[in-house]
Amino acid sequence: MAHIALPTGLPGITAGFAFRPDTAKPMRELAEVLLRGPNTLTRGEREMIAAYVSSRNECYFCHASHRAAAAHNLDGNYELVDAVKRDYQTAPISSKLRTLLAIAAKVQESGKHVGAADIERARSEGASDAEIHDAVLIAAAFSMFNRYVDGLGAFTPTDPDAYDQMGRRLAREGYARAND
Amino acid sequence: MAHIALPTGLPGITAGFAFRPDTAKPMRELAEVLLRGPNTLTRGEREMIAAYVSSRNECYFCHASHRAAAAHNLDGNYELVDAVKRDYQTAPISSKLRTLLAIAAKVQESGKHVGAADIERARSEGASDAEIHDAVLIAAAFSMFNRYVDGLGAFTPTDPDAYDQMGRRLAREGYARAND
Repeated sequence: MAHIALPTGLPGITAGFAFRPDTAKPMRELAEVLLRGPNTLTRGEREMIAAYVSSRNECYFCHASHRAAAAHNLDGNYELVDAVKRDYQTAPISSKLRTLLAIAAKVQESGKHVGAADIERARSEGASDAEIHDAVLIAAAFSMFNRYVDGLGAFTPTDPDAYDQMGRRLAREGYARAND
Repeated sequence: MAHIALPTGLPGITAGFAFRPDTAKPMRELAEVLLRGPNTLTRGEREMIAAYVSSRNECYFCHASHRAAAAHNLDGNYELVDAVKRDYQTAPISSKLRTLLAIAAKVQESGKHVGAADIERARSEGASDAEIHDAVLIAAAFSMFNRYVDGLGAFTPTDPDAYDQMGRRLAREGYARAND
């Protein structure tokens, strides 16, 4: 049961959003710009960073929903998303994305853990400053979203189909919808 | 020096905001609604939670700027803000705010650390569900802002006067200005 009287039946973060629409609006907008707006990183790559950070924070709802959103931005390739979660160093992704995931992992612990060597490695694999910026901010933003969901004790569905449908809808329609 | 080519001379988070205005907009709006919008918690109380979480994350820029913003929302009472940082259990604040700071401290570690007993204590001291929600979200949001600033290696002024002026301006004008 949620810690406070959230609207019932709404999964995870959507319950917090419905409880407080004024804060939901900028939070939704941030997710939309960051994960789906114009970018040299694909939507699939950005959702993989979001899912990976959420798994490191052990946020079941955020991990499961962004895992599914990532997969539905990658032609349904759940295997790739799960390979990143298990070990991004060996997952079949680009070297550039690997260096951005390394930066995201540091940010998940603390922004202070990012060092010059992490940035060097990302640049040497072709990452632009904008891509490094967005990897930092995706990791920082999910450090917020994850804490928000779990700190409210929000309702967390366990049915995998529910997340698959959620991921499909997020990949198609995004985060800006105001009606849930 | 910042990790990426941020605009020079801008302090802390404002450099990240100038680098990426599209993500700055919702981040500014979230801070404005959460810390200054209509609320049964005073602006001073909310800024004290923000400063406290930032000090736990050891984010020098965010702590110094929100410490000053809190003080300027409390008739310049830096002593109170610093007493909360040292030990909120003994600081001369309301019992309700003490229980909300305890929740914020848990969220700073992980949303999962918030337990039913923390919520009970807050309710027994008169905290509403909306106030508990906002304490959770302020702590979650500063887990983002802190990581963003430090993960970018943003320029951090050390002159105390710079923060005092910043805090005065934030207390007067808020976070929604688009021109810095």
